[in-house]
Amino acid sequence: MNGAERLVSIAAEGGVEICFANPGTTEIPLVSALDRVGGVRGVLCLHENVCTGAADGYARLARRPAMTLLHLGPGLANGLANLHNARRARSPIVNIVGDHASWHLSADPPLAMDIASAARPVSDWYRHNGSPAAIAADMQAALAAAKSRRGRIATLVVPHDHQQAAPVAGAEPAAPEPFPPPDPDAVARAAERLRAGGAACLFLGGSALWGEGLRAAGRIAEKTGAELLGEVGFARLETGRGLPPVARLPYFPEQAQEVLDRFELIVLCGAKSPVSFFGYDHLPSRYLSGHPGVVTLAGPDEDAVAALSALADTLDAAGTWGGACPAGPEAPRGALDPDRLAAALVRHIPEDAVVVLTAVSSAAPFSRLAAAARPHSQIALTGGAIGEGTALATGAALARPGTRILHLEADGSAAYLPQALWTQAREDLPVTTVVCANRAYRILRIELARAGIVEPGEQTARLTDLRAPAIDWVAVARGFGVPGTVVDTAEDLVAALERAAASTGPFLIEARLP
Amino acid sequence: MNGAERLVSIAAEGGVEICFANPGTTEIPLVSALDRVGGVRGVLCLHENVCTGAADGYARLARRPAMTLLHLGPGLANGLANLHNARRARSPIVNIVGDHASWHLSADPPLAMDIASAARPVSDWYRHNGSPAAIAADMQAALAAAKSRRGRIATLVVPHDHQQAAPVAGAEPAAPEPFPPPDPDAVARAAERLRAGGAACLFLGGSALWGEGLRAAGRIAEKTGAELLGEVGFARLETGRGLPPVARLPYFPEQAQEVLDRFELIVLCGAKSPVSFFGYDHLPSRYLSGHPGVVTLAGPDEDAVAALSALADTLDAAGTWGGACPAGPEAPRGALDPDRLAAALVRHIPEDAVVVLTAVSSAAPFSRLAAAARPHSQIALTGGAIGEGTALATGAALARPGTRILHLEADGSAAYLPQALWTQAREDLPVTTVVCANRAYRILRIELARAGIVEPGEQTARLTDLRAPAIDWVAVARGFGVPGTVVDTAEDLVAALERAAASTGPFLIEARLP
Repeated sequence: MNGAERLVSIAAEGGVEICFANPGTTEIPLVSALDRVGGVRGVLCLHENVCTGAADGYARLARRPAMTLLHLGPGLANGLANLHNARRARSPIVNIVGDHASWHLSADPPLAMDIASAARPVSDWYRHNGSPAAIAADMQAALAAAKSRRGRIATLVVPHDHQQAAPVAGAEPAAPEPFPPPDPDAVARAAERLRAGGAACLFLGGSALWGEGLRAAGRIAEKTGAELLGEVGFARLETGRGLPPVARLPYFPEQAQEVLDRFELIVLCGAKSPVSFFGYDHLPSRYLSGHPGVVTLAGPDEDAVAALSALADTLDAAGTWGGACPAGPEAPRGALDPDRLAAALVRHIPEDAVVVLTAVSSAAPFSRLAAAARPHSQIALTGGAIGEGTALATGAALARPGTRILHLEADGSAAYLPQALWTQAREDLPVTTVVCANRAYRILRIELARAGIVEPGEQTARLTDLRAPAIDWVAVARGFGVPGTVVDTAEDLVAALERAAASTGPFLIEARLP
Repeated sequence: MNGAERLVSIAAEGGVEICFANPGTTEIPLVSALDRVGGVRGVLCLHENVCTGAADGYARLARRPAMTLLHLGPGLANGLANLHNARRARSPIVNIVGDHASWHLSADPPLAMDIASAARPVSDWYRHNGSPAAIAADMQAALAAAKSRRGRIATLVVPHDHQQAAPVAGAEPAAPEPFPPPDPDAVARAAERLRAGGAACLFLGGSALWGEGLRAAGRIAEKTGAELLGEVGFARLETGRGLPPVARLPYFPEQAQEVLDRFELIVLCGAKSPVSFFGYDHLPSRYLSGHPGVVTLAGPDEDAVAALSALADTLDAAGTWGGACPAGPEAPRGALDPDRLAAALVRHIPEDAVVVLTAVSSAAPFSRLAAAARPHSQIALTGGAIGEGTALATGAALARPGTRILHLEADGSAAYLPQALWTQAREDLPVTTVVCANRAYRILRIELARAGIVEPGEQTARLTDLRAPAIDWVAVARGFGVPGTVVDTAEDLVAALERAAASTGPFLIEARLP
């Protein structure tokens, strides 16, 4: 095996199924190795931020490492923003970046760049492969880093000549850094405080928002009367009928603070202490600074599932959650607005579907209603870097073959990576994209008003406006091979969602909102 | 004036006309300042790599600094790849990046990122504004850095609270780093060697490829019999009838080496010694290593125009170039291929038009023929980071109001930033985009063959293929507000070019190539 083949074979043995790729000349040996070794499927993305965003979406649901293949420094640079989101989601990702032949780099060819500096802000682990003999150990270390704790971003740069060198020997798998066991004192403290009564909530993040962690949190809530609250930018949330409902912390600080101030006791489970998205004059960064009743059961890098299970045991909260489900919305009628859009979606969501939630201003009603839907998973924007939705949905579909992905997307955000739709078409992925076309960077309009700018000047108005020209999302989608339709009413939205669900592949709905 | 208003007023006084912006919450004071101060026009781009690529295109032609406004670390990250190209083009650009309020950063909010590390690979100058009082001096320094020598990339990060702080005082303009005067020894050495006779060429780069520099080079060529050769990835080239023709160095190393080996004397003028784009086994990185007849008249950071003028004076090469013009191509007929496409374009180019040349495999015939066209400017991909074309064309149109921009683009590359078409539509820019739709990453197919892979495996074939599905470029363009048409023949291409030229705004032509 040459270096590239060794790398791919270690990836396959380490559980990597998919490589989201936009390769160039310096990655040709790695591309060939996908054919020669087998076990890892290359998925072509037409922009590197699609590769990294799809890797993020895949990793959040598959809980196995996703791999990307990126072309030199500029290819990595194009994928940084979604790696930033992925790092905040603690998604396990191994980025393989090809580099110039080691002997060619000193000529400073056009594509040469300081890759290490570009990679650092988004990489928990970084290495530049120094020799063909080290490739196997480097790849094992990258995989172990990606699999550590909840998940990490590992970036390995491999020069072209090292990929080609042969034969390259294997190396023993490296051990991922495990979670430490739950802190018994933290468990005892949380149990004692919860037993003491008073208004309490479990503030859930990371792996506490789905699966075993969520179920344990639900039993604790049922037993103690504590409410369940989840972080705004969650990596993954399971919700719907039969699951303990988790209220999503509001995006704006006044509302978030109001929600949190209702509680005498806040138990942090897999989440860091919540902070404001932006800093606003006269408002604190940290919502809980000075709050007397904060107990950390497990931080974001600790094993929240084990900690919640231990807490449930301590509280004798066994069995399954059996609380009441909220009532679902009525069938909406008439011209679309965010409430009617939410009602239509909530009534439609198929069981076990995945909802990608990257709209902000148009998605608030949906988040309030989603607990009444059929049980489903949601993934959201963790790091605030705009435009990940189409890529997240692509990766989510590849992680869950046969499952319908519903993507609730803002139009400002959808304009970032429309070419991800092409990968959805090529791979025939069952993704329904609903673009909330309010034709503005609405969130900025709200922020302008918050900053006291009620009558924006001409430039300000133009810089937050998406009307002139209005984007024809159905044409964009068709251009990239995805059929679609425009809807103005709730009835038409319902029909379009059903039409999309009846197909095997992707579909885009441009939902015209006021 | 608050900090943001001071910054914008210094930009306006320093010659900045346009700010290519994709702002967010942390840049709201800067957006408002565009309205309150005046003099700098905000141009909304729907992706930050459009902002930075348009700034590059603008700066190459306007030769005054372009400004960008980017949202925090992820916004800058999205714009890095085209800043890489811009740095290689030595374009004068000031990036203004908003940051969280200084007191908010320690809360590690979702969008927080190590901005300095991300900025370093593409920034010749970088500063994080430390206080409102320093804003004026920081902005003056950033402008001076951008204007230094041929042009540089300056990145200034300004926290949100510093933008809002008032009053903020002004500061004296800082002096850009000037070019050193031409080295008289280098001029004398070049003159002596050129006078000695033998096969000689001037290898031109940077400012030697247009305006006064090119005219001086032409006179030297006429006087001495030296040929003119230009770098592959030029920032700007003037060519066409009545201008000294410059042969573009071939992209592939064997061909480039063959061209260069014909000369006993090679005089480097505003260019670094040429190197191979990639490293290939058994081929050197540096084409001229070991060549006995290399003379550096001016390096890429030296004043090639002054050096060429001095050399022309020394050689008594006065007056204007009066050499013969190559004959233009015949009117092409029949099914399109790269030769017929080139002939149609070369015959069509309006006088003083700007051609953006980002296609590679489909553009080689065009580069060979362009000297026979009406006089025009070309800008090309300098740093090899794919996908800049639509953004370059947008910026070029804003730098040259009323001038038709012809953009010869590859389909793999066009899939990167299709949303730049929206800015072309909004600003009603006269850009004709010709997408060379060969439906493959053709350059990779060629590289596979070069690497001896004549029958690619299934994965390799799929990772270099753009057929399934074929992108409908006319639909994508229409979605972003730009009309267009498909052409299969040379005759239809000619008609479509004329139709585009008759409108005031943008137009896209999908040219189907084999």
